[in-house]
Amino acid sequence: MIEEMESQPGRRSSDDLRQILAPVLGDIARVDEMLRSVVTLDIPLLRGAVDAVISAGGKRLRPAILLLVAKFHKYDLDRLVPLAAAIELLHTASLIHDDTIDNALIRRGLPTLNSVIDEGTTVLVGDFLFAKSAVLSTMGGIQRATRIFAESLVTICEGEIEQHFSVHHLANSVERYNRRIYSKTAVLFAAAGEIGAVLSEAPEDDVQRLRHYGKQLGMAFQIVDDILDMASTEEQLGKPIGGDLRQGIVTLPTMIYLDDASVEGAEVIRQVIEGEDHSDQQVGRAVECIAASGALRKAQAEAERLVAEARASLTSFPDIPARRSLLDLADFVVRRDY
Amino acid sequence: MIEEMESQPGRRSSDDLRQILAPVLGDIARVDEMLRSVVTLDIPLLRGAVDAVISAGGKRLRPAILLLVAKFHKYDLDRLVPLAAAIELLHTASLIHDDTIDNALIRRGLPTLNSVIDEGTTVLVGDFLFAKSAVLSTMGGIQRATRIFAESLVTICEGEIEQHFSVHHLANSVERYNRRIYSKTAVLFAAAGEIGAVLSEAPEDDVQRLRHYGKQLGMAFQIVDDILDMASTEEQLGKPIGGDLRQGIVTLPTMIYLDDASVEGAEVIRQVIEGEDHSDQQVGRAVECIAASGALRKAQAEAERLVAEARASLTSFPDIPARRSLLDLADFVVRRDY
Repeated sequence: MIEEMESQPGRRSSDDLRQILAPVLGDIARVDEMLRSVVTLDIPLLRGAVDAVISAGGKRLRPAILLLVAKFHKYDLDRLVPLAAAIELLHTASLIHDDTIDNALIRRGLPTLNSVIDEGTTVLVGDFLFAKSAVLSTMGGIQRATRIFAESLVTICEGEIEQHFSVHHLANSVERYNRRIYSKTAVLFAAAGEIGAVLSEAPEDDVQRLRHYGKQLGMAFQIVDDILDMASTEEQLGKPIGGDLRQGIVTLPTMIYLDDASVEGAEVIRQVIEGEDHSDQQVGRAVECIAASGALRKAQAEAERLVAEARASLTSFPDIPARRSLLDLADFVVRRDY
Repeated sequence: MIEEMESQPGRRSSDDLRQILAPVLGDIARVDEMLRSVVTLDIPLLRGAVDAVISAGGKRLRPAILLLVAKFHKYDLDRLVPLAAAIELLHTASLIHDDTIDNALIRRGLPTLNSVIDEGTTVLVGDFLFAKSAVLSTMGGIQRATRIFAESLVTICEGEIEQHFSVHHLANSVERYNRRIYSKTAVLFAAAGEIGAVLSEAPEDDVQRLRHYGKQLGMAFQIVDDILDMASTEEQLGKPIGGDLRQGIVTLPTMIYLDDASVEGAEVIRQVIEGEDHSDQQVGRAVECIAASGALRKAQAEAERLVAEARASLTSFPDIPARRSLLDLADFVVRRDY
């Protein structure tokens, strides 16, 4: 199966992902079950909305990493499932608050209000899911896992605050970008690796290696997200292309482009980022400039470098199916088309 | 000292509170220190604002209860201080989100926007403090304490959501009111009692008694808050009188009043609660009706009944200074004027 996949060049789909995660698919179903059990409450007014958010929710990559890395040592599902659910729920909750904040920002320019529930409720629902994820994080019975979990939440919040204050500023360094995507994304991938290792009673060296795997994978994942925001079609992405630019967020492709941009090109970017002109037309022009410059390819190379590091940190582990899954998952992350 | 205080009838001040808390005042200072250490971060833009919120913050009743109840058994400050700080910080964070939501509600009628930081940032700062409080809650080294803490956060969030959906509805039952003030206030007082007992390795019966003390005290505390919202002056309260009515929130005095109100009186209340007329004049008229009816006295009697129960749950404990503080604190809660 793996050979067959390696022989298909090009972008990867959700079917590929299911194949990669085969060793833990059944256990991910248990995580999903626990996630759903969290919202069967006496808030009938909201249950539907929250259920939808959780069920719609994504690729389950973080739970998958947590489970896969635990396969190297003591694989105890009673410990692993609550923490895997906690991480996924935390991810969901932070997306909900992110959207609230983003709406608040976008609203200054474009009136894109959430039509299902009002903003106040959205904040409360996010809080509620944070709270539930905190409870889940105590259910593995290992205090260190709860601690890693809570500290990751702190990092996410710090990152959100920093991003909130750095939008619409053209002068962003790669260093700051790396810090931002770590806080935004990689920290939870790193936590998944570390918590999976800790719960499986891995020796400390292995804990650090598996944490590093998660971290580098997460960094690459976010860079690819930032590339897809400019390289996809609106259909594939599920939202308009160039969303980051439109919101005034400078990502890696934009930084790489600005390093070598003509005066005119730099001016197009500046107008969009600083909110002077973020019309669809101008955002489209900015995306074209960046794509035509080769900046997306260079950003992709950086993602591939990080993923190679993630794979390298698995060198010393035995060649079990879970290891092959983790290696393939790294490959998937940089080749996915969604 | 205690006799002297008992001989002063009438309302209690912050000086009284300092005297009551004497056995743990030094340790509360350590809690404060830990609270301040939490915000020395690289978010200079916000540090001032957050520092102010934490320092301004209130009576430190929750940390005081946690510390005082621990005096009955093994009093280990290294365990107690982080959890006391966690509870206080959680309280602060939930106030911050509460204010955001309330603003969003009030904004429909009156434009009372926070002038220091925008709403998006307020949400993020609240999240950040939630996250920090979760980390603190893992620092006592006892997983059960972390679990109680996280579950209290869930209850608070559920309560906020329920309150959000029950405003502007006249038909509220005492049962629902009790559930609401438990979620809003008593749950953290109960958690303070329970966590203090758990961390001091109290036997399970004592844990339940000390939790009950905290819970009943917290219920009484909120009822008194709801009375003060109608009985205080704007100066004492630090905000306009009748705030709950203005926001469409039905509290115990209002419910007691409505049980026996004339058709005209009930109509005044209805107009305010349903938002048909919540002008200062109409709110003032509603407060007058309620106060003149004796409903505030009846609500006060209910608070005193709860506080008597709180005191009764301390019967079996030895007569140490901490026990006298807890008894006096119960008295303070129903007699305070702020």
